[in-house]
Parts: sequence; C-alpha cells; structure tokens
Amino acid sequence: MTDEARILQGMRDWLPRRNRLRSWVTGELRTTFELFGFEPLDTPALEYGSTLKGKYGEEADRLIYQFIDRGGRAVGLRYDLTVPLARVVASYPELPRPFKRYQIAPVWRAERPQRGRYREFTQCDVDTVGTTSRLADAEIITVISAGLERLGLPDYTIRLNNRKILQGVAAEVGAEGERAVELFRALDKLDKIGPAGVTAELVESGWNSDTIDRTLEATAVQGTPSEALADLRRRYASNKRAIEGITETEAVVAALAALGVSDHRLRVDLTMIRGLDYYTGPIYEVVVEQPRIGSVSGGGRYDGLIGIFSKQAIPATGGSFGLERIIDVIEDQKLEPAALARTVSEVLVTVFSAETQAASLALARDLRANDIRTEISLVDERLSNQLRSASRRGIPTTIILGPDEVAAGSVVVRDMTTGNQSTIARADVAAIAAAIRSGTT
Amino acid sequence: MTDEARILQGMRDWLPRRNRLRSWVTGELRTTFELFGFEPLDTPALEYGSTLKGKYGEEADRLIYQFIDRGGRAVGLRYDLTVPLARVVASYPELPRPFKRYQIAPVWRAERPQRGRYREFTQCDVDTVGTTSRLADAEIITVISAGLERLGLPDYTIRLNNRKILQGVAAEVGAEGERAVELFRALDKLDKIGPAGVTAELVESGWNSDTIDRTLEATAVQGTPSEALADLRRRYASNKRAIEGITETEAVVAALAALGVSDHRLRVDLTMIRGLDYYTGPIYEVVVEQPRIGSVSGGGRYDGLIGIFSKQAIPATGGSFGLERIIDVIEDQKLEPAALARTVSEVLVTVFSAETQAASLALARDLRANDIRTEISLVDERLSNQLRSASRRGIPTTIILGPDEVAAGSVVVRDMTTGNQSTIARADVAAIAAAIRSGTT
Repeated sequence: MTDEARILQGMRDWLPRRNRLRSWVTGELRTTFELFGFEPLDTPALEYGSTLKGKYGEEADRLIYQFIDRGGRAVGLRYDLTVPLARVVASYPELPRPFKRYQIAPVWRAERPQRGRYREFTQCDVDTVGTTSRLADAEIITVISAGLERLGLPDYTIRLNNRKILQGVAAEVGAEGERAVELFRALDKLDKIGPAGVTAELVESGWNSDTIDRTLEATAVQGTPSEALADLRRRYASNKRAIEGITETEAVVAALAALGVSDHRLRVDLTMIRGLDYYTGPIYEVVVEQPRIGSVSGGGRYDGLIGIFSKQAIPATGGSFGLERIIDVIEDQKLEPAALARTVSEVLVTVFSAETQAASLALARDLRANDIRTEISLVDERLSNQLRSASRRGIPTTIILGPDEVAAGSVVVRDMTTGNQSTIARADVAAIAAAIRSGTT
Repeated sequence: MTDEARILQGMRDWLPRRNRLRSWVTGELRTTFELFGFEPLDTPALEYGSTLKGKYGEEADRLIYQFIDRGGRAVGLRYDLTVPLARVVASYPELPRPFKRYQIAPVWRAERPQRGRYREFTQCDVDTVGTTSRLADAEIITVISAGLERLGLPDYTIRLNNRKILQGVAAEVGAEGERAVELFRALDKLDKIGPAGVTAELVESGWNSDTIDRTLEATAVQGTPSEALADLRRRYASNKRAIEGITETEAVVAALAALGVSDHRLRVDLTMIRGLDYYTGPIYEVVVEQPRIGSVSGGGRYDGLIGIFSKQAIPATGGSFGLERIIDVIEDQKLEPAALARTVSEVLVTVFSAETQAASLALARDLRANDIRTEISLVDERLSNQLRSASRRGIPTTIILGPDEVAAGSVVVRDMTTGNQSTIARADVAAIAAAIRSGTT
C-alpha cells in the first residue's frame, strides 16, 4: 500500500462481509420505523456553518468539521440529524403535524478516535414533531423496543426518567436553572466515576456536602415502574414539578403496556440523566447486559430545540440508535443471521470452456430470472480452480455444465459444504433453483 | 423561515414522498447488483486530499470540496466512487480477484448548480476489478440493462463503442497519443454542437479540414451490432488496433445475447466517445427516448486507473447509474409504482377518547405484529378531524374503535377512497389485516 492509499484516522471502510451485516441492521430498523408510520427524510451532508453552530454547546461546536467553500460560504458537515430536522421543519411549513420522520445517515465529528468512537458514524433517528402527547413519547420507546426485538437482541433494559422529576429533586435541594444543569451534568457521570467522584466534582464547584448527599440519596430511586413511581409519589407528594414528571411517566408506562412493551424490560432510574441539556420531559436509554458497552439507544422529549429556526416553540420527541454499537453487540453475541456470513452469491455457474460458455451464461440468466443471486466464473481457468475459488469465498452451491451435461440436457448442482451432487434437467429451472435454495437455507 | 434555516445552493432535502421513490430506486438497483453477485462496499465521505487530487484532470480537481481539518491534514469530500475503490483495492490485498463490488452513495462536486445538476448527488456504481475478460464487460452491461428493466423504463438504447476502434480510426487519420485524445474530446461534443461545431473547434486547434472530414466520416458508422461490426471489419481489415477493438466488441455482443440482453436494445455508435480519458476498451452509454435528458447510465473498461495506488496495472470495468436522472425519467414518464405515491402508513387507528385509548393502542400493536404499517392518532381531537387528517395525508384506510365497538368486540374498517366500511370482529386480526391490505393493493 502506498502513502496515498491511506484512509483517514477515525474513518472506516465497510468491506462486503461486514457491510452486509450493516445493511441488514439498517434495513430492519427502516422496516420497524415504517411499521409505525414514520416517513423517510434525507438531508444534505453539508449545511451552512451558521445552521450548525451554537446548537450543541461550546465544546461540541469545536468538533464540527467546518470550512469555507469556493463561494466563500462558511459550511460544515452535519454533526447530528436533529439540527437538520429543525431546519427542515422551519423550511417546509406544509409538512403535516405531527410530522413523523426517520433518517438513517452518517454524521461527522472531529473527535479523538478511540475504540468504538469514530469520526464518521451512522445515526438512526426517529422523531415526532409537533405534539406534546405522552403517546408520542411512548411510541418512540416502543419503536426502539420493536427494533431491538427485530434485531434479536435478547437482554436489554429500557431505563426511564423524566427531566421534570429531576428538576423537582433539584428544587428540593435548592438548585434551579443553571445550578440544576450543573448538578445533572455531574450526576450523569455516576456510572463512570461513582458517587465519590461525583461528590468530589460538585465539592470543587462549591456545593456543600449535605446538599450533595441529599441529591445522591434522592436520585438513588430505582426499580420497576410500579414500585418506583409509587415510591416517588410518596416522597414528592407536595413537589408540584416532580409530581408533573411522575404523572407523565405513569402515562408513558401505561401507554407502553398497551403498545406491548413488556413490563420486565422497563426500569425507572433517576440516575439516568442523559447529558444533552435540551431534554425537557421523558428521557430514556437502552442498555444491554452483554457486552458491557453502555447504551445502544436513547432519546427523550425536547420541546425547545426544533423551533429554533422557526422562532416559535415546536414540541418534539425522538430517539436514536447507535448503529456501530448495535453491530458490536451483534458481533460479540454472535446474533448475526447465518446467511449474512456468506457471500452475496447463492450459486456460482462454472464455465467449462469457450464452447460451453454461452450455455453457462444462458443458465445464469435463467437463474437470475428466478431470483437466484447468481455469479458466473469470469476467469478462464480449470474447473477445479473455479470450484476451489467458490469454496474459499463461501459460495454455498456451484453448477457444473460441461460438454457431457450440455449433450445430456442436464446440469450438476453441487453443495459446496457437503460435496453432495445432484443431476437435474437443464430445462427444469424451477427444480435447479429449488436445489440451490435448499442448500442455501 | 429565518436566515439560518437556509439549505445550501445545489443541495437538496429529500422530503418523504420523493424520498420513498428514491429508496425504491436504490433498493431495486441493490437487488439487481446482488442478483449478479456484486457485493456491497462502503467507504468514508472524507478522504485525504492527496488521494483525490490529480485523478480527474485539472478542471475537475478544482471542483473537489477540500479543506484543512483540525489536525492540519488536507482532506476532501469524495468526488466519485471510483478513486475510493482504487484506494480500497490497494489497501486490502486480501480481497478476492476478481473483486465485484457495488456502492450507492453520495458524492460532492463544487459545480455551478443548474437544472438536473447538484453539488451533492448519488452515484450507483458497479465494478469488476482484476480481470480483462470480455465477460466482465458484458456482465456490467447486463446489470445495467437488468436494473433499467426492473425499474420499468420502457424505451432505452445501449450505445456501444470501443476505445481501441477509436484509436484505430485516429491512427488512420494520423492522430496518436495526446492528439488522439484531443480528437476524441472534440468528437464527444458532436451531440451538443454538431459536425460544424466540432470542425470549427478542431480547425482552431490546428487540424486540417481534410483530416477532420475523414474523421467525421469514419466515426459516422452506426447501426445494429451485426451490421455495424461487419461494416467496420471491411473498412479496417488491415488496421490491427481497430480489428482488436472490433473483435472485443463482437465478443461482448455475443455474451450479451447469451446473457439475455435483447439485440434490439443495442446500437454500435462510433460517435459515442465518453469524455473520461481513462477508458481503454469497451465503452457504453444508455440513452432514453423520453424525456430527452441524455444518458441515464454509462461505463466502460479502464485498465489503468485502479492500480494507481498499487503501482501495478489492475484491469477493471464498471458502470454507473445517475440516480437523479433516473428519478427524473420515472417522474416525467409516470412510471412510479402507485403504492409509492401514498404515505408509508397503510392504516390509521383512530382514538375515540381517553377511555378507549388503550384498546386502540393494543389494536395497533396487533396489526404491526401482522406486518401492517400502522399509525395511531397522537393528537387529542374529534374523530371527524382524525379522519379528515388521514384523508388529507393519503392514508388509505382508517379503523374506528369507539365505545360501541369496544362493547361489541368489533372494529369498523373504513376505505378512505370509497368511504365503504365493514365491521369485523376485534379478535380476528388476520381478517382486519386482510381488509386493510385489500384496500391498499
């Protein structure tokens, strides 16, 4: 490999084998989104710099790939799919409300690359814009659950929380506005640095240890929705903000039950904060048991963000799958459908010689007309080499069509795993296709 | 819409309705590519500037979106999918040969935007790397034809030519090397500026008019493959280079016949030059009769390009679909499948009141489990408004499930086009699904 052929750090090539898995995952998610009536939206990779900047916080702004284009415009590669959605909502007032859309597309962040973190990665977003209904929140959580079920992830838990409950808790300990945000930011690190780490960080910011202890105690509530919500109702009976959040969560949980999300998947967890400041109501995150890689999906309600370009409040709720992490889970837990491990081709039609080539091509044509993914040997080489190459590449079936077969009006179908062969009449394409499929399935 | 909400010039949002058509087209092409055993490859949008530059000619180099990233690296957005393929081939020597891959992905060019030309557009490329076999060329042409058939394009013609025949013709009139390239570049404009324009341009470059006339006369050969190739064989019997190209074309045409590409689709046409300098053998272009927008697909053999990063010759052949132009043809000719004109949702389950909401949600859950794309009303409003909204959005069927229906254990399925209604037992989800499907199909 020469110098020029390097790939950029933090970027990846998706070679066929792994790319088949990726296509399968995005295909299943797409099907899931559409089962719930979400419509596909796509937006350009490049946006005006002014569209992107100032939406993600100072630290994140620095991670936007931005530059000046040939026309002197400040432009940037999209950093997520939510700000483009906000731009679209502002640009096309004719869109229906609620507007339900999904988008599966790459985003770019100039982060320090590390295991599992890339500079180009794919987000799978699903959002409902234009309603404050609890049903809309429950629907997004149901979509996420349905997507994970479809992908065959066996052990996942949906952690539920609500920003209004957290605001209520913060008010109890005397933290409002910016101070509450500071508190949540520290609490968000509980998984990573533990209570001692969170305490140390808050002490450094000037919080007194009594307040910190009370906060940690208050957010330690965790359990099944029925237990935890009853507990919270007792604790915060006179805290209007918290009760509002508790009532919302109860409504979401009730809708989830009716929508078929199994209760044992759900866990109310007040330590689940989600870093982004823009959430305003229900928030959630999905964690898997194995491997221990944190969340594979998450989301929440964010009633202040979508209207940012429209200069009006537009409520919205949405969730997102981390495609790369889901692929990591599938590979780690060996959940990949067996067929994906193979090459795209279900069969290789061999070419015996220049004289029989046309017969092989015509058979390939007939198999494709029967929806069999058919490869034909393009390389002039001995039959044994063609078979060896098919075997090495994992093509499950080959067809031998030499002068004897042409003369007899038949073909030999060979299962490359078992070595079993059967002779089938050339005219009976349906029988040949069936033999190939029985080897493939 | 505020200032900040602008989209960049030359970029497009794909709103749901049109995006469904786009997904359908890429899905059909993907299926076609895989039917022939081509494997999916994906590569990052960003590449090192040095990877991209110097590959497309001076003029094109200026159209690459390039910039310096935060790490001080010169980077650029990919300009096509062929140079990334060359980088991949150099980077992963373990890939099988021949390596057959497809890639459907956006590319970026800082061109002056105009009707049908965008700064971000999607290429659908299919290439075979690592063999000089004529079969590989014929296979790409067959894939293109199969893709267009699958998309239902009724009237298209595949124009065939071969760079070796053109080199033979150029040699006859005394043009070799760079002079031949100059000649082809001018001839390539024949469609646009006519023989007089081409003559004027060549005269200006110092060609004498006798040579120009002879060239125009020589390249005027056009017709069915059998007629045109026989004609060329007679004319160039003693021109070794031309005969080589003619023999290649004959082999490609014979393979196309065996692969099922109908002869009446093919036309040998020596004025079809294809601008890119890198072609070395068979070249082709697909034109449609209506609308008159030029070619929708094209390609050829380019044995010098893929090895550029490997410092060795690696033969390759490939073709490309212009997604945007194909969508233009489908819309212009109204070839869009009827189902795509509708919203994703096959049915809206209405919500009568807070009391019946759980019943509506449970029905939605059961319909989704039966693969019905089901939307539920998220907005608290009167039934009549829910029905009106479904009708306006083109959802073909609605389900009414009020207190009477809940009490009776039934649902009312309403066809929104005819207004016909039928009452079906709530327990019989299969019958409800069938009623929805009969309205949808």
